[in-house]
Amino acid sequence: MAVSKTLNVDLGERSYPVVIGRDLLGGAYELAAHVAGSTCFVVSNETVAPLYLDALTESLGAKTVKSVILPDGEAHKTLTTLSQVLDALVSARASRDTTLIALGGGVVGDIAGFAASCYMRGVDFIQAPTTLLAQVDSSVGGKTGVNHAEGKNLIGAFYQPQCVLIDTATLDTLPDRELSAGLAEVIKYGAIADADFLDWLDTHMEQLLDRDSEALAHAISRSCELKAQVVAEDEREAGRRAILNFGHTFGHAIERCQGYGDWLHGEAVAAGMLMAAELSGLPAADVTRLRELIRRARLPVEPPAIDADAMLGAMGLDKKAVGRQLRFVLLDAPGEARLSADYDEDRLAQILGAGA
Amino acid sequence: MAVSKTLNVDLGERSYPVVIGRDLLGGAYELAAHVAGSTCFVVSNETVAPLYLDALTESLGAKTVKSVILPDGEAHKTLTTLSQVLDALVSARASRDTTLIALGGGVVGDIAGFAASCYMRGVDFIQAPTTLLAQVDSSVGGKTGVNHAEGKNLIGAFYQPQCVLIDTATLDTLPDRELSAGLAEVIKYGAIADADFLDWLDTHMEQLLDRDSEALAHAISRSCELKAQVVAEDEREAGRRAILNFGHTFGHAIERCQGYGDWLHGEAVAAGMLMAAELSGLPAADVTRLRELIRRARLPVEPPAIDADAMLGAMGLDKKAVGRQLRFVLLDAPGEARLSADYDEDRLAQILGAGA
Repeated sequence: MAVSKTLNVDLGERSYPVVIGRDLLGGAYELAAHVAGSTCFVVSNETVAPLYLDALTESLGAKTVKSVILPDGEAHKTLTTLSQVLDALVSARASRDTTLIALGGGVVGDIAGFAASCYMRGVDFIQAPTTLLAQVDSSVGGKTGVNHAEGKNLIGAFYQPQCVLIDTATLDTLPDRELSAGLAEVIKYGAIADADFLDWLDTHMEQLLDRDSEALAHAISRSCELKAQVVAEDEREAGRRAILNFGHTFGHAIERCQGYGDWLHGEAVAAGMLMAAELSGLPAADVTRLRELIRRARLPVEPPAIDADAMLGAMGLDKKAVGRQLRFVLLDAPGEARLSADYDEDRLAQILGAGA
Repeated sequence: MAVSKTLNVDLGERSYPVVIGRDLLGGAYELAAHVAGSTCFVVSNETVAPLYLDALTESLGAKTVKSVILPDGEAHKTLTTLSQVLDALVSARASRDTTLIALGGGVVGDIAGFAASCYMRGVDFIQAPTTLLAQVDSSVGGKTGVNHAEGKNLIGAFYQPQCVLIDTATLDTLPDRELSAGLAEVIKYGAIADADFLDWLDTHMEQLLDRDSEALAHAISRSCELKAQVVAEDEREAGRRAILNFGHTFGHAIERCQGYGDWLHGEAVAAGMLMAAELSGLPAADVTRLRELIRRARLPVEPPAIDADAMLGAMGLDKKAVGRQLRFVLLDAPGEARLSADYDEDRLAQILGAGA
């Protein structure tokens, strides 16, 4: 008997449950209960589908299940791939009553969610994230989309799923490096919103790296709770939600300067969080503690060697920038974040120079 | 001094005004008041831009105005064109504070609105429709999108504008055939929701065809009011809103069988409305009256010669079809419509056979 925990993301009429537990795929959890019509269309990729598509199909009982399998990797998170998914939906004669299901990591979830938002102007959508990053990040909040050659996630929609099913057993097959990249976002939630959770991470980092089921379930559950709280306050990212981008303005700039693909997103965010923590002017002990936690999660604590001007240029097109004035998510203390344009410009230059 | 009338489309926090009048472009109406940021990005086409882009720019006062000019025609209402608009936005370094403005007919409005919905997951949007069809149809209701090779409007979003500015003077340059096509939708509003408006159209059809400003302003205003009422009741097209598709299941099938482009959308809808009226089992006098009104608007009263099976097949992929069961918008009486699967199948076969 699988044990699961259910969180509710409270968004009024667009509220939905996030179900977390081990071995939920394969029939232990009746996912079909969240499917209004008789047909499902699964979007997955060539890495994940061979591992979990059969188990997902079992969870759907008597529903008709069709699927499209995408190539793996962020390079395919494009309008071209979206167009292929839409073509596949049309070929399968998917109707307004079809439920799209994303089975995979963040790339699959973002493309499938965007496809669900725009196929016939919106069909039902379920997320079954199989990476730690997707489980704690892209599965909560309704952000969907694809990259543009000039910037990440420049094209997309806010679109909420009917349900998110997180089976922690899918992490058994996740490469170490991707597990660590997911932990970067877990650490982020502690840093911006919950100092106690940072303490818990300090004492449980070894279990998490050892993929202890209970520790993972707690880390995922608390991360989703914290994200859900922030998102519920600000669904359309008008203000408060921006704190979720802690480390991301620097992180995205690192990714852009590297042309995406060298570092994982979580790795760039890890280094970016430390840059943002330094820009925040936190006491040295707090920065050191965050650095040690990130290091223990086997994540980079320094940015790669990138010219300061290139970083600034890359941040200029960052979509969180308002006009030409750069704003950053800064920490007042561990667990307390704010979006601010009020920072020491010299310190910023110094931090950017550190990578060059 | 230009005289304008303002309707409010009541959608809670997504409510917006529709401003209708003659000579509003060019500075008489301060459109800049609806632009939150400092920059606007106009999407227009090669036919409309030379006529009205300068006047629109004047309406925007001190705002920075950039633009992209699309080729004219429904053939360009594709994901490829959407991608080009998004590229142009990125090249112009459009930010989250940029307001997109659609200047043109329904194709421009649908593409620009979809682009606004997905660029950076949503930026502000203003409609300045320049065809009668766009003024009474696509400018109210928030439907945006593009066509797929397998069906019209299969890809898109529900996305509401900040404001719709309807300058009836833009109709001075509209080809006669497109004026008539717009009148098809005007007649539709009377047929589904307002028998008195049908009477008014009966007595004012000549003025409308002569492009009398006052008559046009009333026809547009009443059409928008009627559509706004229906949309406000059912923003996401769960039920009631479907009556706006009166004549469209047949009309779309005509367009699909012709490969789009032979008949105008309004022409196909005109013939489709009469087919739907006949399927409704209305008294012959009511059908005859609707036929005469459509004929006087210089619109087709018979479908083109199309094989009945081809029409049925075309309706099978119509996205209003639920599963394999076809539903139609039928009239209980002039001005009273309902969505129904309860009709005489023999009569349907007879009506479809009439065109073959």
